[in-house]
Amino acid sequence: MTQQDSEPLELSEALAQVAGEVERTLTAILPQPDGEGPEATLFEAMRYATLGGGKRLRPFLVVSTARLFEVPDNVSLRVGAAVELVHAYSLIHDDLPCMDDDPIRRGKPSCHVKFGESTAVLAGDAMVPLAFEVLADARTHPDAAVRAELVARLAKAAGPQGMVGGQMIDLAAEGLALEIGEVARLERLKTGALIEFCCVAGGVLGRVDARALRALGAYAHDLGLAFQIADDLLDAVGEADHVGKAVGKDAARGKATFVGILGTEGARDQAQLLARQAAAHLEPFGPRARLLSEVADYAVARTA
Amino acid sequence: MTQQDSEPLELSEALAQVAGEVERTLTAILPQPDGEGPEATLFEAMRYATLGGGKRLRPFLVVSTARLFEVPDNVSLRVGAAVELVHAYSLIHDDLPCMDDDPIRRGKPSCHVKFGESTAVLAGDAMVPLAFEVLADARTHPDAAVRAELVARLAKAAGPQGMVGGQMIDLAAEGLALEIGEVARLERLKTGALIEFCCVAGGVLGRVDARALRALGAYAHDLGLAFQIADDLLDAVGEADHVGKAVGKDAARGKATFVGILGTEGARDQAQLLARQAAAHLEPFGPRARLLSEVADYAVARTA
Repeated sequence: MTQQDSEPLELSEALAQVAGEVERTLTAILPQPDGEGPEATLFEAMRYATLGGGKRLRPFLVVSTARLFEVPDNVSLRVGAAVELVHAYSLIHDDLPCMDDDPIRRGKPSCHVKFGESTAVLAGDAMVPLAFEVLADARTHPDAAVRAELVARLAKAAGPQGMVGGQMIDLAAEGLALEIGEVARLERLKTGALIEFCCVAGGVLGRVDARALRALGAYAHDLGLAFQIADDLLDAVGEADHVGKAVGKDAARGKATFVGILGTEGARDQAQLLARQAAAHLEPFGPRARLLSEVADYAVARTA
Repeated sequence: MTQQDSEPLELSEALAQVAGEVERTLTAILPQPDGEGPEATLFEAMRYATLGGGKRLRPFLVVSTARLFEVPDNVSLRVGAAVELVHAYSLIHDDLPCMDDDPIRRGKPSCHVKFGESTAVLAGDAMVPLAFEVLADARTHPDAAVRAELVARLAKAAGPQGMVGGQMIDLAAEGLALEIGEVARLERLKTGALIEFCCVAGGVLGRVDARALRALGAYAHDLGLAFQIADDLLDAVGEADHVGKAVGKDAARGKATFVGILGTEGARDQAQLLARQAAAHLEPFGPRARLLSEVADYAVARTA
C-alpha cells in the first residue's frame, strides 16, 4: 500500500491515486442505504454529499505527510476519510438557506436542494460523530494514545475555536470592510485549522517529535492561506462550469476577500509567496517531501 | 468529590447535587464570550442553550453508574458534561424551523429565536466536536484506551445509526400510523442510544467486565423507554407552564406516540412496568444501585 519504495509519481497522478483510494475508504465507512425507510434517505444524502466529488486535497495531505514517516496508507487513508467527512459536512451546512444559501456544490444540486433542508441538516449532523468513530476505532491505529490524540486535535480544529468559529466570523463579516489581518484570521479558522490537522496528523501517526510537528504545522499554515487566496481568485475570475460551483458570489454579497483587498495580481503574488514559504518549511524532511512542496504550487497554478 | 462514603442522599437531592456540579463543569468547558466579535455571539448562543436548564438526567446517569464502581465524580462529571453538550446540540437543531419548528425550550425562547437561525445551526455544530474534545482529553481519564472507547461509544450513539437516525425517522413519521414496535425503535435510536451511552460509560470508566456492561445496557434500555413514554404523557396531558416547552404538539402534527397507540392509562401502565424491569437489571450491583432504581420510578411519577 505504501509509495515510499516506488518511483515518485507526478503530483496529479498522486492526487488521483489518493482520491481513488479515499473514495473506496469512504464508500466502506458510510452507512449503506439498503431498505426503503427514512434512514435510507439519510444515508443516501450522506453519500451524495461525500462521494464522487472534490479534489480530496485534505486526505492527500494526511496520506502524504504520513508517508514521510513510513506510515502505511491503509492507516492514513482512514484518518483522511475522517477529515473528508468533516469537510463534507461543513459544505452541507454552509450551503443551507440560512447560511450561504448556495444551490450548487461540486457541479451538482446542493444537498438541501436535492434532499430537502431537514435531511441536509441531519446528514451533516450524522457525519461528524462518524468521523470521530473512525478515528477512535482500533483499525485506525493500534495505539489508543495516538487515536485519542487524533480525536482531540480534529475536535479542536472543527470546533468553536476552529472551523465553526471561522464560519461564524465569515457570516458576520458580510458587507463589512475587514482588514487583511482579519481576513487572514477568518480563513485560518474556517479552512486553515482543518488543513493544519491534516498535515500534523501524518506526524502524529508517525509519532514524530514536537519539532517535526511544528514544521508540519507551519507548512500547513502557509499552504492553507495560499489555498484560500487561490479559492478567492477562482471565485473572482473563474467560470462556474469549470469551478463546479457558483462564482462571483463573494463580490455580489460584499464579502471581504484577499482579492478584494489586494486586487487580482496582488493576491496572486501573495499566494505564490506563501507557496514558496510553505515549501521551505518542508526542508527538514528532504527530497521525500517533494510532492508536498508541489501541492502549494498546484493550488496557485490552477488559478492562472 | 465522591459520594460513596457518605449517607445516601435522597434522589431529588442527588439529582440537584449532580445538576449543580455539571453546571459548573459545563461553565468551565464552554468557551468564554469575551470581546465583541462574532465568535462572542457564537459562544453566548452555546452557553444559552446549554447552561441554566434541564434536569441533567444524562450526567446523573453517568455519575451514578460510575459511583457503583468507585470512579471519582471529577472524572464522571466530565463525561456527563460531554453527553450534555451532545444532548443540548440535538435540542437546538431539533427546534430549528426546518425541523420541529419549536419556539420554546426549557421555558425560554429557543436558540434560533433568540440568536437567529444561522447562529443556532453553528452553535449546535460547535458543541459536538467540543464534546469529543472533552472525552479525548487526558484530564478525563489517564488511560487513553478508556478515552478512545468513550469516544467510539458516544460517536455511535450520536451518529447516523443512533440519535440522528432516530430524528430522521421521527421527522419522516409525522402523520404516519406507526405500530408500537416502530415507535419503540424510533425512540430507542432518538433518545435511547444516548441514555444507554450514559449508563455504560460509568462501567467503561470503572473498567468492568462485559457482563456488567450488558446489565447496565439493559437497565438503560428499559429506563430510556420508560422515560420516553413519560415524555409523551407530559406532552399529551401536561401544561406548557409546568413542562417548560410547548405541549400538545405531538397530537397536533399527527405524530405517532406511545400515548396515541396505548392510550393515557395504557402508556402509564407500560411505563411503570418498564421502570420495574429497569430496576431488576440493577440487582447484581446490590444496594448501592438504589438511587439508580429510583430514577425510573421518578421518571414515571412526574407524569402522574
